[in-house]
Amino acid sequence: MTTRSPELRRDPVTNRWVIFSPARAKRPTDFKSKTPQNPNNNNNTASCPFCIGREHECAPEIFRVPGDGPDWKIRVIENLYPAVSRNLERSDNPGGGGGMGFPARVMTGFGFHDVVIEGPVHSVQLCDMEGSQIGEVLLAYKKRIEQIMSIESIKYVQVFKNHGASAGASMSHSHSQIMALPIIPSSVSARLDGMKEHFDNTGKCSLCEIQGGELLINETSHFISIVPFAATFPFEIWIIPRDHSSHFHELDGEKAADLGGLLRLMLRKMSLQLNNPPFNFMIHTSPFQATGWQLQYSHWFLQIVPQLSGVGGFEMGTGCYINPVFPEDAAKVLREVDLPNGGFN
Amino acid sequence: MTTRSPELRRDPVTNRWVIFSPARAKRPTDFKSKTPQNPNNNNNTASCPFCIGREHECAPEIFRVPGDGPDWKIRVIENLYPAVSRNLERSDNPGGGGGMGFPARVMTGFGFHDVVIEGPVHSVQLCDMEGSQIGEVLLAYKKRIEQIMSIESIKYVQVFKNHGASAGASMSHSHSQIMALPIIPSSVSARLDGMKEHFDNTGKCSLCEIQGGELLINETSHFISIVPFAATFPFEIWIIPRDHSSHFHELDGEKAADLGGLLRLMLRKMSLQLNNPPFNFMIHTSPFQATGWQLQYSHWFLQIVPQLSGVGGFEMGTGCYINPVFPEDAAKVLREVDLPNGGFN
Repeated sequence: MTTRSPELRRDPVTNRWVIFSPARAKRPTDFKSKTPQNPNNNNNTASCPFCIGREHECAPEIFRVPGDGPDWKIRVIENLYPAVSRNLERSDNPGGGGGMGFPARVMTGFGFHDVVIEGPVHSVQLCDMEGSQIGEVLLAYKKRIEQIMSIESIKYVQVFKNHGASAGASMSHSHSQIMALPIIPSSVSARLDGMKEHFDNTGKCSLCEIQGGELLINETSHFISIVPFAATFPFEIWIIPRDHSSHFHELDGEKAADLGGLLRLMLRKMSLQLNNPPFNFMIHTSPFQATGWQLQYSHWFLQIVPQLSGVGGFEMGTGCYINPVFPEDAAKVLREVDLPNGGFN
Repeated sequence: MTTRSPELRRDPVTNRWVIFSPARAKRPTDFKSKTPQNPNNNNNTASCPFCIGREHECAPEIFRVPGDGPDWKIRVIENLYPAVSRNLERSDNPGGGGGMGFPARVMTGFGFHDVVIEGPVHSVQLCDMEGSQIGEVLLAYKKRIEQIMSIESIKYVQVFKNHGASAGASMSHSHSQIMALPIIPSSVSARLDGMKEHFDNTGKCSLCEIQGGELLINETSHFISIVPFAATFPFEIWIIPRDHSSHFHELDGEKAADLGGLLRLMLRKMSLQLNNPPFNFMIHTSPFQATGWQLQYSHWFLQIVPQLSGVGGFEMGTGCYINPVFPEDAAKVLREVDLPNGGFN
């Protein structure tokens, strides 16, 4: 372990400052989850509505990816407890405090909140699947996003996965979620501003420029995985398409399978190195209505965050995070995780 | 409980959208912490370096507030594991990736990270103290901030308290922290932008305008406590000075005691209503170098957040939070908590 002074870094993409503070750190190889997830040991299969054969207990199905015979491989369904409602008209300032004649402060909670059941069997988690199977899950996201795109008042779609109770998952059956919103959220605006600033300064897309170098973990034909320059969280990972692409839903079948393989590798490395931590992943895409100019500097990516530490008052107050592991140290550890067959099979 | 449709609100101060989603909620009165804090029951007093008589085990003292005889009432000390270092020169782009000739992306981690030990006795938490004693803690923050102000490269000071392990506290002895930074963090800039937008639109300070109404919890001579219009978290509380004031360190002795009483009341109400939840509080002040124009629309406040739920991929991806409790419902519950003597004694 290198003994280093604390350092502040501002990421060109998120445009946020992060404090790297090795004085608080264990050695990078000593980070382990204190709440490891062992979903195969859980005993609530009998009551899981996401399992095959219990479809009638779920909210309505939107579509399914058929499997062999009568079975299904993937189901996209409505969320039984949606945070936003598909049954509302969008309207600004529907009444109540806040409407004051200038930019809207109140809106009805119109939107879509869907669930992607990633497989029919309770014990099979995403990282247990083949890369091509994970690719099919990614293509299910794409298909659902393309359906939602036709609705004019939807501005942004957030695809995310919560794995483990402390990462926000209420169900242990492998699933992810798609939330479609009538607004562009603040973190998305900040990211676009950061990418624009980089483009204005250099004439180049901030993510096309990344070659990896000492931040590289692994690479495939179409994607690279890195620890970002100013990673907000220890062992945070970004998977970035090599070719410039603003929207996740531009993904085709070949690239989906390629990404599925790299995502699987990252989840398996993280699981082995960090003791099966709870984790989140998020797909950071562009707003639907992004214009020609924005498409030049906006580049989608997938962010994976293992849940190794909580958030305190400093982070809540400032939006500035303290990360005890330098990104180049985390990348080295993850690059060198030794999986059977290099982890691709 | 009113059955309501989900609603999106954008707070005029934080300028962030929040989704209010009652479909996911229990009744507002049913929210209870699942990890209640019982610091008086903890058994590690014997090894606590913050206790009186063990001062030699701590990092260096900066100052103390004397008590009767040889005792002290409050100590301000250096953090033994500081996230930023007082022993560095501030310098932009000290080398390594990211320095590219335009706005700095790397800085040495210069700054101050101090601890305020709020009392000498392990079993006494902040909400057990009299309002006037809490006022003395607030004046200790003020004194330390005024010392730090003289250092030109410090741009912002964040005062915060983590109470309970899941709120980020590593020590159970009652304490808070002061972090002084060479940057203005992103959440602070966003807040100033939000306040400026409101001022530009209305000619009025966004916090001077707040009268409370159905969002009011309690009020004193100099302060009001409310649940904010677009509260990010369930049962989040803001304490706001009635008179316009940009910087927390403008607080005088009379107002400090008044604020101490109201802070005590809020902590006691929260503790009784929500089952001793872990919590954070943060003081949101203005950057040291705020100019005359900024001073007109920037108004400091204290934010209290009980930790009742975690953060998942949606919040991490978008910066947009889902709150299951409408602010006016949370305010009503907190307004009506029945404490002996109204809770002020």
